[in-house]
Amino acid sequence: MKIKGFRTAAVAAGIRYKDRLDLGLIVSDVPAVTAGVFTTNQVKAAPVLLDMDRLKQGRAQAILVNSGCANACTGKHGMEAALASSRSLAGRLKISEDMVLVSSTGVIGERLNVPAMENSMQDLVDSLSDDGFEDVAKAIMTTDTVSKTVSRTVSINEHEVQFMGMAKGAGMIMPNMATMLSFIITDAQISYTELQQSLRQAVNKTFNRITIDGDTSTNDMVIVMANGSAGNHWIDEDTPIDRQAFQDGLEDVLKELALKIVNDGEGATKSITIRVCGARSEQDAETMARTVANSSLVKTAFFGEDANWGRILAAMGRSGVRFNPDIVDIAFGDVVLVKNGVGLGKEVEEAATGILKQKNITLCIDLKDGTGCEEIYTCDFSLDYVKINADYRT
Amino acid sequence: MKIKGFRTAAVAAGIRYKDRLDLGLIVSDVPAVTAGVFTTNQVKAAPVLLDMDRLKQGRAQAILVNSGCANACTGKHGMEAALASSRSLAGRLKISEDMVLVSSTGVIGERLNVPAMENSMQDLVDSLSDDGFEDVAKAIMTTDTVSKTVSRTVSINEHEVQFMGMAKGAGMIMPNMATMLSFIITDAQISYTELQQSLRQAVNKTFNRITIDGDTSTNDMVIVMANGSAGNHWIDEDTPIDRQAFQDGLEDVLKELALKIVNDGEGATKSITIRVCGARSEQDAETMARTVANSSLVKTAFFGEDANWGRILAAMGRSGVRFNPDIVDIAFGDVVLVKNGVGLGKEVEEAATGILKQKNITLCIDLKDGTGCEEIYTCDFSLDYVKINADYRT
Repeated sequence: MKIKGFRTAAVAAGIRYKDRLDLGLIVSDVPAVTAGVFTTNQVKAAPVLLDMDRLKQGRAQAILVNSGCANACTGKHGMEAALASSRSLAGRLKISEDMVLVSSTGVIGERLNVPAMENSMQDLVDSLSDDGFEDVAKAIMTTDTVSKTVSRTVSINEHEVQFMGMAKGAGMIMPNMATMLSFIITDAQISYTELQQSLRQAVNKTFNRITIDGDTSTNDMVIVMANGSAGNHWIDEDTPIDRQAFQDGLEDVLKELALKIVNDGEGATKSITIRVCGARSEQDAETMARTVANSSLVKTAFFGEDANWGRILAAMGRSGVRFNPDIVDIAFGDVVLVKNGVGLGKEVEEAATGILKQKNITLCIDLKDGTGCEEIYTCDFSLDYVKINADYRT
Repeated sequence: MKIKGFRTAAVAAGIRYKDRLDLGLIVSDVPAVTAGVFTTNQVKAAPVLLDMDRLKQGRAQAILVNSGCANACTGKHGMEAALASSRSLAGRLKISEDMVLVSSTGVIGERLNVPAMENSMQDLVDSLSDDGFEDVAKAIMTTDTVSKTVSRTVSINEHEVQFMGMAKGAGMIMPNMATMLSFIITDAQISYTELQQSLRQAVNKTFNRITIDGDTSTNDMVIVMANGSAGNHWIDEDTPIDRQAFQDGLEDVLKELALKIVNDGEGATKSITIRVCGARSEQDAETMARTVANSSLVKTAFFGEDANWGRILAAMGRSGVRFNPDIVDIAFGDVVLVKNGVGLGKEVEEAATGILKQKNITLCIDLKDGTGCEEIYTCDFSLDYVKINADYRT
């Protein structure tokens, strides 16, 4: 899939490791309406701070992204490095410097290898083509085991509108406004206000519903660029039907990317949907689902394929959400394990253990105390998670 | 060490496993002034609910405790089982039933094996002696690798007052009011009001400052029985000096038990003190220290002996506590790794890695923004933690 007016490229710049793609570029031929959401972590990496500032204008033309180094927590050097690389790229692309966004992922606290990036910058620009999107998705991987891209076509006022999205994940993933890194390009013609609102809304329902390990990164960002080449009538506040069609398409792309991140969580062997219904509010449902999703004891039980619902009830009980434990039902898939707060016995647990052997599991919690219902997507907690994170920098 | 007027015993009742001590008993010859603090988890095990009710009278004479089954989340059966075992014991001890406290630890959601307890109850009572305290500490172990007891003698108005305490821990440990199980006996003569206040104050400074895995149990309880046999003048609100001496002794016992729990955390290879200073309030300091202590990424880095301070800053940043990342200092022991938010380089990291090879590590975070200072005690997150918790019930 290609989107008219966007070109992409990736090269192996040797920023941290040799001979692997680690520097990617997305360029729009014309200034694209561009919206972003960024990490809520108070410790924000230099590229996050720079992009937040530059996106106030609602337009951008290029995203330069590296893996191998987060460019976070290095003091003044971090912003200098971000500015230097964006300046170098802008010169080669002959665009205004403030139309360049930069993004980094990798180890926190190390200085960005600007000379390596500079050495490869012209190669990168020369390699731009209309089919490099997958390569960029590879270049942003860190502990990811697979690259993550999604494409969609939706119809908006009789024009085909395309979306192409990429994301990376794996660890330090409990996005709170945005996930690690995700870039979406679309040919939709849409106003900045609508694009930003649409992105925020979609992120809240997708990336902000996943957690790998409860840790929120310093570098999270989701950026969507819309270059208008689809030729649809402008989507703005006066076109609610078109806006909804765009929203649905964007949300669909983000949801699939979010689930790909969960599927590829560090060391993950299973993907788990935690659904809490019957809560007094949606906020209560989300809080409880998130507490269960982040419990190390629940996650290791999933890894051990152990239908240990006592740990689920214990996590629910410490979530801070008010509920009556004596009327709660808990099910794995369609197997009800706990009815009115009491386990239904060994036979049922054996059936539930069968469900736990699957790769995709839905845990349903019904509090029977209201209409609040929310889902959080997570993965299990395996020996490999500990191995990966004990050895990450060695 | 022995305390006059207290007798203890433990037997292998076969509640879940054969041939290991799993049923313990602590008896005071006279009704002892008794205070307790219990889990804040909304899902409370039957023995917790029963003891909370019985301790309203501020007196008790016996604690019956089993491992192998938490007697939690089994509906009406749970309370019936707790009542049946306390009734059986009271009959044999010839004391009033409401002077018996019960306590359970083990798997949640399974029914308590009352027949096995009943079969061993007379043996248990017949075994009571003045030197069974260590056996009871063994009988309450689950995934603990060592039993945990502490004794102290303090001087109160020219009388020697003794304390003996025990605790169990290992997993599902982030006490919020109390830890998994801890029992303390003392011969102090003290009013119920002072004992309860003293216990709550000591628990807040000790057990409530440790976390193994961020999960709070359904069964946590700390109970202290004071039988008055030391013969000191009554400690009450009119004896502030004696009260402080008692408080110091109790806190000392609880602190040592709490640290023993951390040292024996599931799979733990290291004990870590997380100290946050310079916060705008003590609450802020505690919240941040707790967030860092519960971060899976920080804990796996400790296991890997990796001075990965970026993960520490990332956890601080998502803690919800306001601070200025650009003035923060971070040190392992006396090695300052980060000065004003910036890493001090490879040489310093190597020195810090030396510190990380030790068994007991102090991580110091200075926010330089106030006088709030608090410590949280935790352990690292190892491969064995996952192994233990993936296989716990098999």
